[in-house]
Amino acid sequence: MNEVLSPLAWSHGVLALLDQRLLPTEEVWREYRDHRDVATAIREMVVRGAPAIGCTAAYGVALAALQHADLDEAIALLAATRPTAVNLFWALERMRRVAPRTPEALVREAIAIHEEDIAACKAMGAHGAALLPAGCVLTHCNAGALATGGYGSALGVIRAAVARGTKLEVLADETRPFLQGARLTAWELMKSGIPVTLITDNMAGHFMARGKVQSVVVGADRIAANGDTANKIGTFSVAVLAREHAIPFYVAAPRSTIDRAIADGRGIPIEERAPREVTHVGGVQVAPTGVAVGNPAFDVTPAKYITAIVTEAGVARPPYGESIAALFE
Amino acid sequence: MNEVLSPLAWSHGVLALLDQRLLPTEEVWREYRDHRDVATAIREMVVRGAPAIGCTAAYGVALAALQHADLDEAIALLAATRPTAVNLFWALERMRRVAPRTPEALVREAIAIHEEDIAACKAMGAHGAALLPAGCVLTHCNAGALATGGYGSALGVIRAAVARGTKLEVLADETRPFLQGARLTAWELMKSGIPVTLITDNMAGHFMARGKVQSVVVGADRIAANGDTANKIGTFSVAVLAREHAIPFYVAAPRSTIDRAIADGRGIPIEERAPREVTHVGGVQVAPTGVAVGNPAFDVTPAKYITAIVTEAGVARPPYGESIAALFE
Repeated sequence: MNEVLSPLAWSHGVLALLDQRLLPTEEVWREYRDHRDVATAIREMVVRGAPAIGCTAAYGVALAALQHADLDEAIALLAATRPTAVNLFWALERMRRVAPRTPEALVREAIAIHEEDIAACKAMGAHGAALLPAGCVLTHCNAGALATGGYGSALGVIRAAVARGTKLEVLADETRPFLQGARLTAWELMKSGIPVTLITDNMAGHFMARGKVQSVVVGADRIAANGDTANKIGTFSVAVLAREHAIPFYVAAPRSTIDRAIADGRGIPIEERAPREVTHVGGVQVAPTGVAVGNPAFDVTPAKYITAIVTEAGVARPPYGESIAALFE
Repeated sequence: MNEVLSPLAWSHGVLALLDQRLLPTEEVWREYRDHRDVATAIREMVVRGAPAIGCTAAYGVALAALQHADLDEAIALLAATRPTAVNLFWALERMRRVAPRTPEALVREAIAIHEEDIAACKAMGAHGAALLPAGCVLTHCNAGALATGGYGSALGVIRAAVARGTKLEVLADETRPFLQGARLTAWELMKSGIPVTLITDNMAGHFMARGKVQSVVVGADRIAANGDTANKIGTFSVAVLAREHAIPFYVAAPRSTIDRAIADGRGIPIEERAPREVTHVGGVQVAPTGVAVGNPAFDVTPAKYITAIVTEAGVARPPYGESIAALFE
């Protein structure tokens, strides 16, 4: 798996995670041998991004098996870390069903989940690359190599478009409060030699109004059966602005992000995170002590704003009820 | 002028400015005796907000007169500080026309500009208060006491609504990159005992979709003859989201913000500020070294998104060509 940038690596019974909280100024890899530490790492966002969380949790179960811990308890602990991204529960369910529950079989399954995720990202790239017109593509948060097993979902589509010769530059929303766009997407694209310009989230509409944006592509944390899509807070605003300017708005996500048990976006739980992520940036206080804060980590973009959903099994278009079901046939 | 919170004070030939860059963690007043230092203070945003900049520049000319400096040179220097807010040029033009050009007359005119601005804010409050329904009003940036001679334009309308008994709470966008919402609006409203919840800019759409926002009120830096309004970057996005959710969107600004010489928003110059405001927060680096950055300080909200414009002379409604002209009759 070394051919692609990946935020996690498994080697001889040890899971290594790139500490994404320290990017872009420091590249620190941390080693994990205990699934409880892996659960903390997911909660504290050492690793983030729905598919990457799924892969990490799978390795967490493998670590629990190697340590002869109670697997059902380990799975419950890992499942309790973050509520919105469904890939977490999908990966844990796959691990739960492994039989026999030997360490070897569980390690093998975790590696398979990781490798399949990278393959899914590359397939999304192949399916989605042709959708992006030359010019500027806007993205929100980080749905890149760092958010997946490797290669990226939204950024995978951009990578594939660049690889097939489309002349693209990327406008990256900084993505407050956690600044995944500024810290991760900008870093990842610069590392890959893809032109990127960083803006604050509230500038997206301005650049759309000036004709600077030809398409939008984002990732997803959970997609309901009707196509309603939960993704990083701010995605919905970008979708409304894109429609206002007749700019195509694409979601790229593996099928493991689709939760067919949920009819529409109202059923998706939205994680509320700590006020300190809003009131402090890198330890610096930027708001009055004691101010009330809202900090929903995700929002829901209704399906009507989404031009198409790119998966490893093909591109779904409205009406999504039918096209999403067809992806699983 | 002590009855209202004001970001500037004149006393015995000295201008004092509250250094807004240090709020909310430090309240530091700086004293100015030289108009060149006042120009630097405006450029570096010790003071900001279109009406407050106008008042400050007027006092700058008064300081130049007290120091027997060349007044036309002083006016040119002050005019070159920031390009978008038209109140700056309006105030300097008023100062230029004072005759005779004695220090006494110029000091008197600067004080008059300051006092009239506070009076205009209170009149805006009186005209606009009834527009805000009970519930939650969202505001962007800081169009408060700190942005004006005192009392505030958008926040003046909110203050007046609260004073007449409307049960209001405020949702304040933090307003990246300079964080005027987090640092100034939250501070000012908490100081005034008005309930405020701080959110990041990209959360506004989420809360609108959930029915949490009943109205929006913002300030303005320059309003064209047709009602197109330049205001802090991100205002346009809020306006699009408000219309999408059928939420009234109000602009509150004194007539000195209206530039009737400009037909529409395309003629308004938009200031581009330094990349460091985006890549660093409070000295902390949050983006890769050398990343390309867009940093337009303002955007233009087309008149079609604006429900009404509240001024000290009354409330203008579409069609703005006629209603704005009527404000000056």
